Amino acid sequence: MAEMKKPLAGVRVLDLTQAYSGPFCTMNLADMGAEVIKIERPGMGDQTRTWGPFKNDFSAYYSYVNRNKKGVTLNMKEDEGKEIFAEMIKHADVVVENYKVGTLAKLGFTYEKMKEINPGIIYANISGYGLEGPMADKPAYDIVAQGVSGMMSVTGFPDAPPTKIGPSIGDNFSGAYLCMGILAALYKKSVTGEGSRLDVAMIDTLFSVMENFVVKYTVAGEHPMRNGNIDPGIAPFDSFSAKDKDFVMGCGTDRMFENLCKAIDREDLLEDPRFKTNGLRCDNYLPDLKDEIEKFTKTKTYDELEELIVPMGIPFGAINDIPTIAESDLIAGRNMLWNVYQPGMEAEIRIPGCPIKFHGYEDKPEKAAPVLGEENAEIYGEMCGFDEEKLKELEEKGVI
Amino acid sequence: MAEMKKPLAGVRVLDLTQAYSGPFCTMNLADMGAEVIKIERPGMGDQTRTWGPFKNDFSAYYSYVNRNKKGVTLNMKEDEGKEIFAEMIKHADVVVENYKVGTLAKLGFTYEKMKEINPGIIYANISGYGLEGPMADKPAYDIVAQGVSGMMSVTGFPDAPPTKIGPSIGDNFSGAYLCMGILAALYKKSVTGEGSRLDVAMIDTLFSVMENFVVKYTVAGEHPMRNGNIDPGIAPFDSFSAKDKDFVMGCGTDRMFENLCKAIDREDLLEDPRFKTNGLRCDNYLPDLKDEIEKFTKTKTYDELEELIVPMGIPFGAINDIPTIAESDLIAGRNMLWNVYQPGMEAEIRIPGCPIKFHGYEDKPEKAAPVLGEENAEIYGEMCGFDEEKLKELEEKGVI
Repeated sequence: MAEMKKPLAGVRVLDLTQAYSGPFCTMNLADMGAEVIKIERPGMGDQTRTWGPFKNDFSAYYSYVNRNKKGVTLNMKEDEGKEIFAEMIKHADVVVENYKVGTLAKLGFTYEKMKEINPGIIYANISGYGLEGPMADKPAYDIVAQGVSGMMSVTGFPDAPPTKIGPSIGDNFSGAYLCMGILAALYKKSVTGEGSRLDVAMIDTLFSVMENFVVKYTVAGEHPMRNGNIDPGIAPFDSFSAKDKDFVMGCGTDRMFENLCKAIDREDLLEDPRFKTNGLRCDNYLPDLKDEIEKFTKTKTYDELEELIVPMGIPFGAINDIPTIAESDLIAGRNMLWNVYQPGMEAEIRIPGCPIKFHGYEDKPEKAAPVLGEENAEIYGEMCGFDEEKLKELEEKGVI
Repeated sequence: MAEMKKPLAGVRVLDLTQAYSGPFCTMNLADMGAEVIKIERPGMGDQTRTWGPFKNDFSAYYSYVNRNKKGVTLNMKEDEGKEIFAEMIKHADVVVENYKVGTLAKLGFTYEKMKEINPGIIYANISGYGLEGPMADKPAYDIVAQGVSGMMSVTGFPDAPPTKIGPSIGDNFSGAYLCMGILAALYKKSVTGEGSRLDVAMIDTLFSVMENFVVKYTVAGEHPMRNGNIDPGIAPFDSFSAKDKDFVMGCGTDRMFENLCKAIDREDLLEDPRFKTNGLRCDNYLPDLKDEIEKFTKTKTYDELEELIVPMGIPFGAINDIPTIAESDLIAGRNMLWNVYQPGMEAEIRIPGCPIKFHGYEDKPEKAAPVLGEENAEIYGEMCGFDEEKLKELEEKGVI
């Protein structure tokens, strides 16, 4: 059987994004088969080319976030660069950017202008505070989005400061939301032929993924704060200590709590009036119920507990560090580390794979991230009809 | 001008999901205009109907995550319920579920069976560990996904325990990824007529949004750990103390650092050999550079600092708590709290809006979350041709 085409085969994306949020968005489009053309400044390229970790002086950060993309160089400040970009818009479905708000318009490319060139174009932005609203002109980084959105105030321990999420979730969750918007716009375009204009802001994104922290305030008038590792509405649901290390576990139903009590040989707890219902278990969780559970778990190793608790159908697991999970059978079994040979780095490295598993396709990268300008000849040849001589001329003038 | 149709107008989703991960996925499909039919157990419904906060005994949690969806009741364990579901598949584009792996197949609905009924069907799953792989049959909750994936090990302060992200990011980011997969599959279906089978796992999801923590290990052999609120590769980039409260700020370029030194009247730091480059600033950040910055910031209020630093183009912001951000001009200006009148609750409440801002549409909810079985007559009338009498009969038999 011939290999099936990936779901986004035939979709063409002009990708002006830099750093992490936008490139994370287009990485997902590329992973699902879109032709993503990453447009970078001649000579320099995306700033992430200078971000570590490096191997043979090539950024693995860049390599990871830009796999499956094609790369061209273009100086958008030059008139000839603008002409080339206008020509490219004719041949594209989507333009994505995460410049400071208004930058692309200043270069002459408003949505109206792009629509004139290609009425079906989808123009998608990612920004800190959105294209409109009281802070639209202000820059934001992930840490600012995590602070302003309220996310830091609800992450961490009650007796410790507001805590940033380790990875830049303000960036990548915004990228994920923009990706959803672009995909919905592509669906609409395939049905109606119409383009779309859409924008996603980092603050909006984090504010909208707060689970029930926001409604607790808006509906119940509570002042939600951080709770460490517990869930204030379910107990037990926390991290716990075994003899050798900590682990995580949650009992979401009375049945699971019963099974836990059996597993840890404490069926007496089921008769204890402090723990009869989930509500009572929440009220009497700290320190009572946690202490009772740890009286047992601290006498057993993690492996011993796993053998007792997992067969009871209770969600239970290790608090892995990065090397441990990266080398686990689980990550191997899910094909969540891809091997990529990266030109420019001249080495094969392992990068996180795509978690969207489409059955029937081979789950692997189609190509490595582009060396700066790698597809100049291919893309400008096809879209603009430039030959080798013309490409050389544009290169010498600093246009590409 | 007539109001434009939303991007996913005409798409029909059978939504068997419960709790948070799956319903978060279909919430986004519904927000963008898909007809999402939430299928719930007669009598009980989704478990989140029993999760707080409540108003007039109706769950605001349920209300928030299920806005814009239609609701029917169906007992999938009864033969007649299965017949009805098979009939519904004929009229749908997508089936989404987050049951324990294998549950729907045991009820008779494998992907092959669904494809027989409707060759173009898209069947999408969300689970803890994936449909395949060494842990496929194990249950997981968000806290387990955060522990096992490595996320907790890189969140929090170095001298404190591994820290859970406040909201259930393992749930909602998996929901976002499944949403991306479904949208790509819908695009493919609109072009080729073909359906898809796809699955997303919580562990895979969190492992793949780790920014550069994973490549630091796989490429550079580092053992990445949690760093509190700093970014180990950029300095200054952290939370800081003002006279009255803490704030967040990042200087991603030498230019921004120059501007910061001007803003805090410490241009001498620019000449300091400890802080000449970003690399040196990272090496000498704790305690040297942070102390130098806070010598100034601790003498000024947040408002005073905002006036000095924001005009310099430096990303800077407050560490807001939930009430403050919820009542801010920013959230109002971005329309990120929607007013919804919730039947069953008989009250208007405020819930977080959709961060995907499609220009040209009115940015508001089309309907509140369904009262249990709210659209039984409409949906079963249209899809199965049932009249009032038949509906009554099915209700009495406990089928709907």
